[in-house]
Formats: sequence, C-alpha cells, structure tokens
Amino acid sequence: MKRSISGLALALLGGFLLCGQVLAADATQKIIRNGEQAAVKGSPEIFTGNVRIEPLYPANNAMVSSGGQVTFEPGARSNWHTHPVGQVLIVTSGVGRVGEWGKPVQEIRPGDVIICPVGVKHWHGAAPNSHMTHISICEEKEPSKVVEWLEKVTDEQYEGR
Amino acid sequence: MKRSISGLALALLGGFLLCGQVLAADATQKIIRNGEQAAVKGSPEIFTGNVRIEPLYPANNAMVSSGGQVTFEPGARSNWHTHPVGQVLIVTSGVGRVGEWGKPVQEIRPGDVIICPVGVKHWHGAAPNSHMTHISICEEKEPSKVVEWLEKVTDEQYEGR
Repeated sequence: MKRSISGLALALLGGFLLCGQVLAADATQKIIRNGEQAAVKGSPEIFTGNVRIEPLYPANNAMVSSGGQVTFEPGARSNWHTHPVGQVLIVTSGVGRVGEWGKPVQEIRPGDVIICPVGVKHWHGAAPNSHMTHISICEEKEPSKVVEWLEKVTDEQYEGR
Repeated sequence: MKRSISGLALALLGGFLLCGQVLAADATQKIIRNGEQAAVKGSPEIFTGNVRIEPLYPANNAMVSSGGQVTFEPGARSNWHTHPVGQVLIVTSGVGRVGEWGKPVQEIRPGDVIICPVGVKHWHGAAPNSHMTHISICEEKEPSKVVEWLEKVTDEQYEGR
C-alpha cells in the first residue's frame, strides 16, 4: 500500500516537474482507486455554502485535461469565474443551476453537459432544494492554471432576479 | 415542428461545414441536454458482446478533449487498442475489468480512475457477472483521431489465463 501510493505521488510530482521524462517513465497504465485521493472542502473565498471537491485525475503524460468531482449542498454555488481554455461539466446527480454573465439562470439535471468556452464568465451550483454533483473537465494552457476566480454570486444573481 | 427540425438540421450542417465560424460564434455557454445525442450500439468489429456508447461532448472551442459514456453488458469488452494522446476512464457503475498487454487483468469499480498513456495497448470491459459503465476522456492530436483499434480480446486474455 505504502509503495503504490509513493509511486503515484512520484509520478504526479514528475508530471508537474519533468513532462518529457514522465512520458518515458509512465509507459504503463495506472489505476487510482476510489478513496486514494483526499476530498477537500471548497474554500469560502471561492464558494458560497458547503462544497466537496474530490480529485479524479491530473493532467498527465501527453494529456492536458484534468478532472474532478464537485458536490454542492442545496443552495451552494461557486463564485463567478472564467477558464483560460474552457470547461466541460457533466451533471451526475441532483438538480443544479448554472449562470452566465448577462444571461438567465438555467436548471441542470443528471446527464446534462455544459460546455463553457474560453473566458466566458459563469458560475455553477446546486438548486435551492437539492444537492448537485458534477464532474468537471478543464484543460491547462500553463501548468495547473485552469480557472480565474472572480466575485461572489449574490442571492439576487443566484435567484435570477 | 417542421420549422424547428429544419432549423436544427441547418445548425448541425453549419457545425460540420464551417468550423472556424462556429468557434467564433461559440462565445457563449452551451447546454447539451440528456437525451439530445443519440446512443449508438458498439460495432462487433471493435467490441465483443453488447456495448452502448452515449456521446457526452466533442472537442470544442480551445478544448482538445472529448468524452463519452460507455456501458458494457456482462462479459462484454473492447478490442485491444491504443490511444495517440492517452485516455482516462472514470468508472461510474457496475464492476469491470481492464487489461494491459503483458500484465495481469485488473478489476475496476465505481470511483476508480484508469490512466492510460500514449500508445499503451489495453482493453476495458465488464466483469463476467456485472455490467460496467465508465466515462471515457480522450484527447485529439489530429481532428477526431483518438484511438487505434487492434485485435479482439480472446476468452483466455479476458479471463487472465
């Protein structure tokens, strides 16, 4: 157990520091088992309400995308933000809301996919009476830089008023 | 009804023929609703057993990744194959198996993430007694080229014998 986690940590570290060499070292498939990566609580600086973020996969080898699973408790939502390369959200459970600057708030449900292009100012979160879980896929232009955080979503904006 | 179908057909045609213009027009968020994209049956040329493929999102705007959801009936599996940029699998339900050339078959369960680097020869599918559903994320080097299909996985290889 200790060895496999050390190996993974080394591979991830290598992925950040030594892209070319990791391709050579990572010539084998890796399985990250459910529960190996710690869930983190969403910071109140960039979220309103309770949010749980569970890492899925980092950018690795030749791949520039990374993925995570995010669960918003009822009423919880992200701050406004933009993505330097864009973002895709795949709703997996609950009922949620997504907002785009200057546009009406929209309801999102399991199986819905939200495609947010480069630089579009948006937010996402749960509906008032339901949690919402989505998988989020982002891509990197600079290493580990996938989002630009902005101001909080006010209650008026959340309600679409 | 006739008008809305014609409008949709025109939009799709435009999407295929006028990529540059579509990118420019995509300065807004899009929601693809569950059920809007047709599920397809996996071809017997590249799968053994019954497999359902449900598109999630195409490469779009600045993003080079694309995603789909694949469900394998018990015993079903892909052929051996490689990916020119790599692949990530996120298991969402059931129990599955994944094989890598020359390595032991491994069991995969919901929440497990499989990272397959460039050119690694592998297969994935369901366990003998359970379905398995995963989300698959690939990235493009050339447009729409995300996989190189190879030979069938024999019963001996599937059983790890």
